[in-house]
Amino acid sequence: MKFIYPEWHRLHHQDQQKALKRAADKSGLPPGSLVHIGAVHELDSRISVVQYNEEKLVEYNELSYTELGRFHHKESITWINVDGLSDTRIVERIGREFNIHPLVLEDILSTHQRPKLEEYDDYFYLVVKGISMHPSDNLRLQYDQISILLLANHVITFKERGDDVFQSVYHRLKNPRGRLRKSGSDYLAYVLLDTIVDEYFVVEEGLDDVFERLEDDLLMGTGSNVLQTIQQIRRELITMKRNISPLRELLTTIKRSDTTLLTESTLRYFEDIHDHVLRVTDTLESYREIIASLQDVYLSSISNKMNETMKVLTIFASIFIPLTFIAGVYGMNFEYMPELKWRWGYPVLWAVFISIGLGLLALFKKKKWL
Amino acid sequence: MKFIYPEWHRLHHQDQQKALKRAADKSGLPPGSLVHIGAVHELDSRISVVQYNEEKLVEYNELSYTELGRFHHKESITWINVDGLSDTRIVERIGREFNIHPLVLEDILSTHQRPKLEEYDDYFYLVVKGISMHPSDNLRLQYDQISILLLANHVITFKERGDDVFQSVYHRLKNPRGRLRKSGSDYLAYVLLDTIVDEYFVVEEGLDDVFERLEDDLLMGTGSNVLQTIQQIRRELITMKRNISPLRELLTTIKRSDTTLLTESTLRYFEDIHDHVLRVTDTLESYREIIASLQDVYLSSISNKMNETMKVLTIFASIFIPLTFIAGVYGMNFEYMPELKWRWGYPVLWAVFISIGLGLLALFKKKKWL
Amino acid sequence: MKFIYPEWHRLHHQDQQKALKRAADKSGLPPGSLVHIGAVHELDSRISVVQYNEEKLVEYNELSYTELGRFHHKESITWINVDGLSDTRIVERIGREFNIHPLVLEDILSTHQRPKLEEYDDYFYLVVKGISMHPSDNLRLQYDQISILLLANHVITFKERGDDVFQSVYHRLKNPRGRLRKSGSDYLAYVLLDTIVDEYFVVEEGLDDVFERLEDDLLMGTGSNVLQTIQQIRRELITMKRNISPLRELLTTIKRSDTTLLTESTLRYFEDIHDHVLRVTDTLESYREIIASLQDVYLSSISNKMNETMKVLTIFASIFIPLTFIAGVYGMNFEYMPELKWRWGYPVLWAVFISIGLGLLALFKKKKWL
Amino acid sequence: MKFIYPEWHRLHHQDQQKALKRAADKSGLPPGSLVHIGAVHELDSRISVVQYNEEKLVEYNELSYTELGRFHHKESITWINVDGLSDTRIVERIGREFNIHPLVLEDILSTHQRPKLEEYDDYFYLVVKGISMHPSDNLRLQYDQISILLLANHVITFKERGDDVFQSVYHRLKNPRGRLRKSGSDYLAYVLLDTIVDEYFVVEEGLDDVFERLEDDLLMGTGSNVLQTIQQIRRELITMKRNISPLRELLTTIKRSDTTLLTESTLRYFEDIHDHVLRVTDTLESYREIIASLQDVYLSSISNKMNETMKVLTIFASIFIPLTFIAGVYGMNFEYMPELKWRWGYPVLWAVFISIGLGLLALFKKKKWL
Amino acid sequence: MKFIYPEWHRLHHQDQQKALKRAADKSGLPPGSLVHIGAVHELDSRISVVQYNEEKLVEYNELSYTELGRFHHKESITWINVDGLSDTRIVERIGREFNIHPLVLEDILSTHQRPKLEEYDDYFYLVVKGISMHPSDNLRLQYDQISILLLANHVITFKERGDDVFQSVYHRLKNPRGRLRKSGSDYLAYVLLDTIVDEYFVVEEGLDDVFERLEDDLLMGTGSNVLQTIQQIRRELITMKRNISPLRELLTTIKRSDTTLLTESTLRYFEDIHDHVLRVTDTLESYREIIASLQDVYLSSISNKMNETMKVLTIFASIFIPLTFIAGVYGMNFEYMPELKWRWGYPVLWAVFISIGLGLLALFKKKKWL
Repeated sequence: MKFIYPEWHRLHHQDQQKALKRAADKSGLPPGSLVHIGAVHELDSRISVVQYNEEKLVEYNELSYTELGRFHHKESITWINVDGLSDTRIVERIGREFNIHPLVLEDILSTHQRPKLEEYDDYFYLVVKGISMHPSDNLRLQYDQISILLLANHVITFKERGDDVFQSVYHRLKNPRGRLRKSGSDYLAYVLLDTIVDEYFVVEEGLDDVFERLEDDLLMGTGSNVLQTIQQIRRELITMKRNISPLRELLTTIKRSDTTLLTESTLRYFEDIHDHVLRVTDTLESYREIIASLQDVYLSSISNKMNETMKVLTIFASIFIPLTFIAGVYGMNFEYMPELKWRWGYPVLWAVFISIGLGLLALFKKKKWL
Repeated sequence: MKFIYPEWHRLHHQDQQKALKRAADKSGLPPGSLVHIGAVHELDSRISVVQYNEEKLVEYNELSYTELGRFHHKESITWINVDGLSDTRIVERIGREFNIHPLVLEDILSTHQRPKLEEYDDYFYLVVKGISMHPSDNLRLQYDQISILLLANHVITFKERGDDVFQSVYHRLKNPRGRLRKSGSDYLAYVLLDTIVDEYFVVEEGLDDVFERLEDDLLMGTGSNVLQTIQQIRRELITMKRNISPLRELLTTIKRSDTTLLTESTLRYFEDIHDHVLRVTDTLESYREIIASLQDVYLSSISNKMNETMKVLTIFASIFIPLTFIAGVYGMNFEYMPELKWRWGYPVLWAVFISIGLGLLALFKKKKWL
Repeated sequence: MKFIYPEWHRLHHQDQQKALKRAADKSGLPPGSLVHIGAVHELDSRISVVQYNEEKLVEYNELSYTELGRFHHKESITWINVDGLSDTRIVERIGREFNIHPLVLEDILSTHQRPKLEEYDDYFYLVVKGISMHPSDNLRLQYDQISILLLANHVITFKERGDDVFQSVYHRLKNPRGRLRKSGSDYLAYVLLDTIVDEYFVVEEGLDDVFERLEDDLLMGTGSNVLQTIQQIRRELITMKRNISPLRELLTTIKRSDTTLLTESTLRYFEDIHDHVLRVTDTLESYREIIASLQDVYLSSISNKMNETMKVLTIFASIFIPLTFIAGVYGMNFEYMPELKWRWGYPVLWAVFISIGLGLLALFKKKKWL
Repeated sequence: MKFIYPEWHRLHHQDQQKALKRAADKSGLPPGSLVHIGAVHELDSRISVVQYNEEKLVEYNELSYTELGRFHHKESITWINVDGLSDTRIVERIGREFNIHPLVLEDILSTHQRPKLEEYDDYFYLVVKGISMHPSDNLRLQYDQISILLLANHVITFKERGDDVFQSVYHRLKNPRGRLRKSGSDYLAYVLLDTIVDEYFVVEEGLDDVFERLEDDLLMGTGSNVLQTIQQIRRELITMKRNISPLRELLTTIKRSDTTLLTESTLRYFEDIHDHVLRVTDTLESYREIIASLQDVYLSSISNKMNETMKVLTIFASIFIPLTFIAGVYGMNFEYMPELKWRWGYPVLWAVFISIGLGLLALFKKKKWL
Repeated sequence: MKFIYPEWHRLHHQDQQKALKRAADKSGLPPGSLVHIGAVHELDSRISVVQYNEEKLVEYNELSYTELGRFHHKESITWINVDGLSDTRIVERIGREFNIHPLVLEDILSTHQRPKLEEYDDYFYLVVKGISMHPSDNLRLQYDQISILLLANHVITFKERGDDVFQSVYHRLKNPRGRLRKSGSDYLAYVLLDTIVDEYFVVEEGLDDVFERLEDDLLMGTGSNVLQTIQQIRRELITMKRNISPLRELLTTIKRSDTTLLTESTLRYFEDIHDHVLRVTDTLESYREIIASLQDVYLSSISNKMNETMKVLTIFASIFIPLTFIAGVYGMNFEYMPELKWRWGYPVLWAVFISIGLGLLALFKKKKWL
């Protein structure tokens, strides 16, 4: 099933407006009806399942949504991953099989959620945003809504995009002696979340790169679109903050939760993610201050340039305007102008011209204009 | 009954001052006397009632306020909607029939309330603001105060304007298999509030449109009233924030309320609205930052233009002022000016003129002014 | 008794410094000694008393402070109002009669209090600020400290100024069927506070008026003292905020109080005032943002004007400086200047002048400077 | 014992760096060793003691630290005041006599404490800052660290400077009928703190004075160092805030304390100081906003002046440059220039000059530049 | 074992990006695997141990990690200090010997932690940042991550760098009568933390120095890179704040902790550190305001300079342009120009020139331009 669906997260993107429009259109539908609202990428939904315990691990790929019924297994941990949300039947089926609240299903399909955690009696629902640099434009970020359902023996993840953010988790699962194989579904959920948050550091690295180039451009006076770059980053930081900062609250809620889904020892690990998120948001905050400081530098550089232009004008005008006046005086046609008759009038005048010029130059030198 | 009543919510609107004046006038009246204080729109009050349960649905339109007594029915849910507040007898009658506190009645009629929730023993009183784009001016927003009374078997809504924001709810009610028909009055209240909040997304879409045009204008250097548009939007955002942000607190209060009016399962849905409101306010917050960034771009564009003007002046003046001086020198009437007699004096001077001119042009080229 | 006493609330008012000085002088006195510290208005203290219950109402005017002992009556509500604080004997006597804490008496007489509420065992002490436009200067506000003592059967009010803010309450009291006559002293206190808060809306209306004129002035480019007006309003808003915002906290304290002085049903009414105060402070907050936005408009208007000045200069200079140079060239006195001899030299040069002029004009037109 | 010790509180003061250096030096010493770290004033320590009860009062001056042991008297209140901290033996001895924690003794001697309150089992330790105008420079403030130890029957105060801030308390103590003589040590502590806080109002009065002069300077365009004054005050406000605002928290802690050192009735008085501190900090906050607004006025005044300069230049240049061109034209030496031969050429040209000049003047008049 | 590892804390440092990259690389590794992530300094890890009680003190230096097993001694306090983190086997071994959580070991090795405190059943884990001036560049700060493990009888510290910040603690330990020798491991931890925090004051002293030089540069108009210095300090302050402010929270947590690791009396001392940290952060906050104020001064100084340039230009142009025009007039070649024939025409014209010049100079004097 192909489906054209608009993107939400990039501000000022043409598609966003479609998303908004659609959100508005949907306001007529009953809440709880399953419609996919999200970014445009024509991606077929793909289901893959990994079932593992300490002894063995089985992988299933390219499953059909009708096969989802056969993974109710309690002796092993089952991780169901869905890439692409266009096929709403998958979400519907999972909802039926695992008895998920209709509002959760609806939220999985709407890819403009704030990161949040919802606790239900026998499962947790987590939405977070994967962030990556845009492949072709290093000033743009790409957002990927990732929903995680944590059940007693299952973890079900939904990813808007087909990227390979979870690739490393697959690798680690294959190591039979890893802690991951010995732990429950809560530890898998932790590893997934940890992987997503670690991506944020990579993105911040990319921004750091951009800052450095910006600074060089500012120092060299090159880069005619410095201001636009600054504004672009300012906005990316605004969007990034909006998509990351709710995570702090989310992780505090996890810490305080008295659920049986999370073991005491896994909670320690979630606290570790909390620390990472605090570090990411601290860095974001300082990036905002740095970008403000770069903008200040840019604005003063404009003022400084104007000042320099003014000085050039002033030096030229102030030197030659008086000289022109004097030349004008001796161009007058009065009958009685004794100087005109003097033998050394003309050379003397040149001497006057030159001394006035040098005098003014000395003055400007003293004013530090030269 | 026709009535001229002033508008409150648009800042700097002439009518607002009348509203303020009236509020002041009213300060002499005993608190609790029913007077309509609000925006000017000559709208006759219209009452419509929908009575429904799982089996059947009956609609009544254009009722008189005297007929309001006959809807005390406990087997079905009754939704009374009042469009237009000019006829205070309706509010008075409803107050008497359903035993509503006089302060609530007064608040329903004053259309300059902050969004709020008041819990009474056997009903809830909610005030929220419907927001829509002004039909003729896409930089102006229109506010519509909507009061919702939630009783055990009744929902009573009062709308300042006669718009059709609840149209979609009517349609959904008519679907006999919808969840709405199977649920209580609390679910109806949820659907109404959800509909109002969904409108906010449409408004934000409109603002996004305006941002895009603003950016284009800024880039092209066109749009002489860019600054005024920016200021206008800044103010709309201020007003919008004032009318939306109290909703967060309101929905938190609902969540924490230990009332019997709301069933456990409906509370989940209200939490969903809470999420939506958080998303709306997050977006508003980033819009405020974006508009600030646009203003910064505008201000630097002025500085840049001034700089460019200065450069043109400096180039012209710096090239021609020295040349004019030299021409002035050879326009002097000294008797002994040997150059004047030279055969090639004039052509040589032209060569000097041209080399000075080209030299200065090269200098300005080096300074990146050309 | 006449008394010269300095004003506190107007920043940068000469008298304020006297107030500060006096506060400093008082630092030598024992805390608790009754001295009037406040604004300069030579007002004799005036006592008036209204005693009422559901059946009857008796008014006493121009009483002497010695007569205050005879109003200990439990069958009716007694409202004692004191206008003007110059006669400290009144406050002293009331303190003795009703057993009021010396610090409260001292606070009543110092008219530079922050709005606050103090709960004592058998009475409440409230200080709030009445605000009104200055009669002669619509950019200045006037503050009036109003102290309210709420006892079981008495309400005692002290007003710094002799204005008629409570006039409407008198009128309402005279209506024998009003709710006021049937309720206790707590309801009277509510009505008084409500009256004071309603005045704030009138003041905000006045500011709104000023905003509108400011905006017109900014658009028209008239109004040489726009900046001063903006700064003046900025400060008035600072002062207003300082005098109003503590009310929020004050009313929250009332709500949470477990006193017997306030009945359950009156508390509802105080909550209503809380809503009003929130509205007032929200509006104040947006006024602050609006004034900041007006200032931004003002500053860019200066930049724009400078830009325009620059353009005029650049156009004139850039057109005529090259022409003057050419004219200067043909004013030179070289013997061999063949052009000077040409028959059409002069007209041809005029053609050159005109084409250069028109060319440059076209250039500036293209740059959108004309 | 003479001792050179550096000052802490004045930012950018040479001595401060010494203080910092010393603090760094001290980092090698064990915490708890008694060394005086503070501002440079060569002041001998002076001890004075007042012992009083309702019946009698005895004063001791210029005591030696060895005599401190004889004031353990329970029938009267003993106030020990130490002016100047250079003699660390006094602090040591008091610590031993009254069993004070070593960290408290250390804090008494380091005069760069934040205002704070520490509760110990049988005493309270309070540090606050006395503030006064610098005697010779009305833009500088002077800080005086005052430590107050409140015991059951003793109050011990340590003052960094030898000023007479407590003079008025001495006077009041001498009044045998004053409340002070009838109350316990807690009331004395209150009176001392009240006296210190009252000084803040005097300082704010002084700042108000400076504001007024600044405003006049700004309006008159005089005062070349307006910006420096503004920056100086900005910093003084920063320092003042840092030294006053912790008092709010301190007084809240006192209110909530369940100590037996403070009687219920004295707590009321401390609440009164809390109000004063809130007023002081509110005023400080508005001073910060006022200073920001003054800076805005200053910056726009620069822009305005530049604009005016530009206008003068533009008017002169725009009028005379075209005229000069025309004069230049008729200074050309073409053989065939018929106008030169006309009888009325010269007067007509003057008419042209004058009309062009007047025309341009009219234009600038219309632009409101004149 | 040599190891190249990138630095984290200095923004815009090339190595930081490597750190980020490595953090990203590590996202593929299982959480809990011990890899050193940190700044580049090729430092061999060095272990030193001090074992002491009231009677004796033994020191061990240059230990191998294999010898760490023999310090499980309960009669004395053991302080193990590790300088340099390149040898991960040390951390691993300590983890095994003292039963430390793997996440803690991981955090010790990643030197880009936020300061934090983690409470475990039988130990505390503290991370703080040591800060020092860069030895060669007084505008740059150096960060040193210091991990402190507090056990019942052991304190284990890990330092990223090999500096001598703990030197003074060694000295104090050697004093057999010091409080340190008589107290438990908690007091040692306090002394170590106190030493680190005291270093912050030294750093602030250095910044103060820089401020002073900046101010001088601003006043003298020298210092072409003032803006860059300001921006550099702004960023250092941002980073510093990020590394210090979490300490406040950390120390509050310690205070509230109900652990048996800290004795009541040592808690008092930790409160003292809390005060110091508050003072440091208060100072940082005012430094941020001071740097903002310096930037304002810098920006106005640019505007002022431009204004001055404009004035020079205007004065020259306004005086000589009219004079040049007049000279141009009498350079015209009209046949009938009577003035040219006048005997005193030329001297009179000079008089006119001089009076116009002086008149304009007087005008500019009046405008305060000279």
